[in-house]
Amino acid sequence: MNARGRHLLVEYTGCDADVLDDLERIEGLMNEAAREAGAKIVASVFQPFVPRGVTGVVVIEESHLSIHTWPEHRYPAVDVFTCGNCLPERAHEVLARGLRAQRFEIMHVDRGLGVPGRMIQVRSHLTESRAELARSVS
Amino acid sequence: MNARGRHLLVEYTGCDADVLDDLERIEGLMNEAAREAGAKIVASVFQPFVPRGVTGVVVIEESHLSIHTWPEHRYPAVDVFTCGNCLPERAHEVLARGLRAQRFEIMHVDRGLGVPGRMIQVRSHLTESRAELARSVS
Repeated sequence: MNARGRHLLVEYTGCDADVLDDLERIEGLMNEAAREAGAKIVASVFQPFVPRGVTGVVVIEESHLSIHTWPEHRYPAVDVFTCGNCLPERAHEVLARGLRAQRFEIMHVDRGLGVPGRMIQVRSHLTESRAELARSVS
Repeated sequence: MNARGRHLLVEYTGCDADVLDDLERIEGLMNEAAREAGAKIVASVFQPFVPRGVTGVVVIEESHLSIHTWPEHRYPAVDVFTCGNCLPERAHEVLARGLRAQRFEIMHVDRGLGVPGRMIQVRSHLTESRAELARSVS
């Protein structure tokens, strides 16, 4: 088997704290991100995070997206795990804009590479500022 | 801020294919794994995976656990993302036994390290066989 999953671990920094503390808005953004990635949404579960922020998961036919936010640090941790023909980078573009991130750090991991002992591989690990982001998504 | 999250990316190989295709059993195992890690479960969403297998997420107060299974390859991809005082390794021990994994590969990633541009760090990346696993959890 080739890589069964493409997994983006994304850390956004310098985000809008009010957005990160707004459950409905975060849920809306995460669902939009899933659709833009070409995923089919099967469930969306969002809760307040203790003591502040939002935690939530969008279950998609092609795996999942998750977010956990720390408004006090203007930071959320995001995962976008997709299989098949999805484009997880598109989910990232939606979120970077919607969260008003100043910077992001993104680790792209291949999952299920099919060789026992070498199933997980880091494909890339990048950091970009908003200026670079604007160019990359324009 | 120090690491806000401990994230285990785990690939199990040589698992029991029937277990991987059994939605109720997988959901039960994932919930047991969350409890053993010391997490408080807030939601559990499991669905059949297309064309075979199970996909699901346990949303916990301290973040999430997810699984996506490929019975035909005797392989599931698992993520255990926890904050606070949880012990994600305990979730892994429950799953390795419950899935009857021959081997596992586990990447331990720290999330939210607090330094923009260096928010994500791979702490370790290990592979072990069942024999080694038996010793490590005994």
